Amino acid sequence: MKNFNFIAPTKILFGKNKVNELGNEIKQHGTRVLFAYGTGSIKKTGLYDKVVEQLTQAGIEYFELDGIKPNPDISSVREGIKICRENNVDFVLAVGGGSVIDCSKAVAAGVPYAGDAWDFLMRKAAVKNPLPVGTILTLAATGSEMNGNSVISNKETGEKRAFGDDSLRPKFSILDPVNTFTVNKWQTAAGTVDIISHIFEQYFTPDKGTFVQDAIAEGIVNTCVKYGPVALEEPENYEARANLMWSSSLALNGLTGTGKIFGDWATHDIEHELSAYNDLTHGAGLAILFPVWLEYVLDEIRAIKIARMSRSCFGVTDDDDMQAAKNGIKAIRNFFTSLGMPATLTEVNITAENFDHMAESACRFGPLGMFKKLGPQQVKDILNMAL
Amino acid sequence: MKNFNFIAPTKILFGKNKVNELGNEIKQHGTRVLFAYGTGSIKKTGLYDKVVEQLTQAGIEYFELDGIKPNPDISSVREGIKICRENNVDFVLAVGGGSVIDCSKAVAAGVPYAGDAWDFLMRKAAVKNPLPVGTILTLAATGSEMNGNSVISNKETGEKRAFGDDSLRPKFSILDPVNTFTVNKWQTAAGTVDIISHIFEQYFTPDKGTFVQDAIAEGIVNTCVKYGPVALEEPENYEARANLMWSSSLALNGLTGTGKIFGDWATHDIEHELSAYNDLTHGAGLAILFPVWLEYVLDEIRAIKIARMSRSCFGVTDDDDMQAAKNGIKAIRNFFTSLGMPATLTEVNITAENFDHMAESACRFGPLGMFKKLGPQQVKDILNMAL
Repeated sequence: MKNFNFIAPTKILFGKNKVNELGNEIKQHGTRVLFAYGTGSIKKTGLYDKVVEQLTQAGIEYFELDGIKPNPDISSVREGIKICRENNVDFVLAVGGGSVIDCSKAVAAGVPYAGDAWDFLMRKAAVKNPLPVGTILTLAATGSEMNGNSVISNKETGEKRAFGDDSLRPKFSILDPVNTFTVNKWQTAAGTVDIISHIFEQYFTPDKGTFVQDAIAEGIVNTCVKYGPVALEEPENYEARANLMWSSSLALNGLTGTGKIFGDWATHDIEHELSAYNDLTHGAGLAILFPVWLEYVLDEIRAIKIARMSRSCFGVTDDDDMQAAKNGIKAIRNFFTSLGMPATLTEVNITAENFDHMAESACRFGPLGMFKKLGPQQVKDILNMAL
Repeated sequence: MKNFNFIAPTKILFGKNKVNELGNEIKQHGTRVLFAYGTGSIKKTGLYDKVVEQLTQAGIEYFELDGIKPNPDISSVREGIKICRENNVDFVLAVGGGSVIDCSKAVAAGVPYAGDAWDFLMRKAAVKNPLPVGTILTLAATGSEMNGNSVISNKETGEKRAFGDDSLRPKFSILDPVNTFTVNKWQTAAGTVDIISHIFEQYFTPDKGTFVQDAIAEGIVNTCVKYGPVALEEPENYEARANLMWSSSLALNGLTGTGKIFGDWATHDIEHELSAYNDLTHGAGLAILFPVWLEYVLDEIRAIKIARMSRSCFGVTDDDDMQAAKNGIKAIRNFFTSLGMPATLTEVNITAENFDHMAESACRFGPLGMFKKLGPQQVKDILNMAL
């Protein structure tokens, strides 16, 4: 187990009608709020009205940033920063899924920064004294509600990049599983794959002696395997939605990565290239890529860990590690497919056209991955295998 | 899953030589420190000198509270409060195991309170604006290093009671597994039982739909089952000590209790009576009582959960829940015994002499437990079964 520091101070307010505590929570941090949300689904579900009621009752002045899209663009970030500066905003409230939260964090980081916010993504600037952020989560997937990470796209340059800092961890996150009842099958499935992928990225590393972290990780994956299908069939099953929602936060708040290197993250990096170039749901991209990546990196050493996950969470019983790993990868693929996720890039109309550029771009800061290092050629191999 | 709030903001500094970050951490919270420790083992191991070096280098003035004993007495708390008030102390540093940390929290709560600190234990006063606390952990057991709880004894009245508040959660805790290399077999075993017991108290509740919490709980118990015996045989096995240490914090920082009632805690309450009256190690008392309690509460409904734990962590394969639960309880008893823990009160020279009074005292605030409610007669039954 490696040395580590761990701090996950986000206050979680979990359960039915927890939005009723919003006003009191915000008042502990600010009085002039940027209210950030997506393309309007919160207006249909009535959540928008509840938020406005809470803000009004608490005497909080608010300014809206709406229209934040999936794979949020740097242009939304810039717009949010402008609104904050013009109105002396001192708190950012994100109401939505990972895209809205990620955009809000970038806004929060950008307001006190003199340069352009894209600098954070290009590793040209460090986050310093960001505005405090709070969230109301409406999609169980990214884990952004309990960590300091943010993924932002740049349409102009065709890039999708991540940055993060502990100071960007939300002060509070309101997790009401009822707010995910209206999430459709596709997004529910993609969210479930996303949660599992976050565990995988931190689980499949060369680290030794991290038994407790890995055991917790397996518990979270088992939760997704159990409840993903239930949420698809019964979208208003509170138990399923609640277990997936709490899993999403715990899968990427740093807990299962303690005592390890930062994680592998090659698959995420490759997926970011895919969804930067194509209109592809992040979780769907991961569903296509992860089994391919596992197959690609599988060898005698890496089989041990893949076999452990396969036996613990995917019903594999083979004693031989290599055989267990192979059967596990098949079982993982089958599970993703059973959720309605695609298995190949061809299914989502992605061709090899931009693979060269994607592979180069993915590796622009150096080789990807920790479980196994991947250069541009290996990334291209994986993309080709995924066709 | 029940609604819940969860906040565990303690910064964990985990690993070899993390004590070297002590000065910098304290400086973020205070400049005049109460340095609290036990009966001198930190002087033998050299940890005392390292702490003093850090405090001195950081220019921090410190005042010592030493001699804090296992089952810390309210007299130590009162002494610590006096030292703090006389010297305008603004930070409490606990260096030791759960006893030192618990005592330090009570001191931190007591300094700004006008009345006597025992009032917190008697539920006559609420914690308000306590001094900040930091810890350096030397024993993997109580989880006090990451929660806001404290257990204090009162020799004068023969009582042992608990209190707690989120504001008492340590600002930081330094967890260096090397500091537990010198923990002897008895204390290592008792600590392992304590960690498992904390999970059990939160696992065996009437709650439904808390799959992810229970899966994480099982991961932590499996860690103890795997590494407890290793740490006994190889006290300087870093991997074993590290997994036990991180497990101790995660077992009682609130995580596995999220979405549930507060937990059962009847077994802890009964054990507190035992160790208030007798010189008994907390974990040893729990090792005696927990299998007895499980046997006592076992019926068709409660068999389901006991069977799940038995299958997940104690190698039981019976399909029938009642049979699995019965075999699981035996396996739990055998595991505790294999660690060298006692199985009966008779073994530790405790007789039925004070059972009447203990049972009354344990239930003074009402019936114990949540998995199954226990009045004084039931408590006495359990104590008699444990003889």
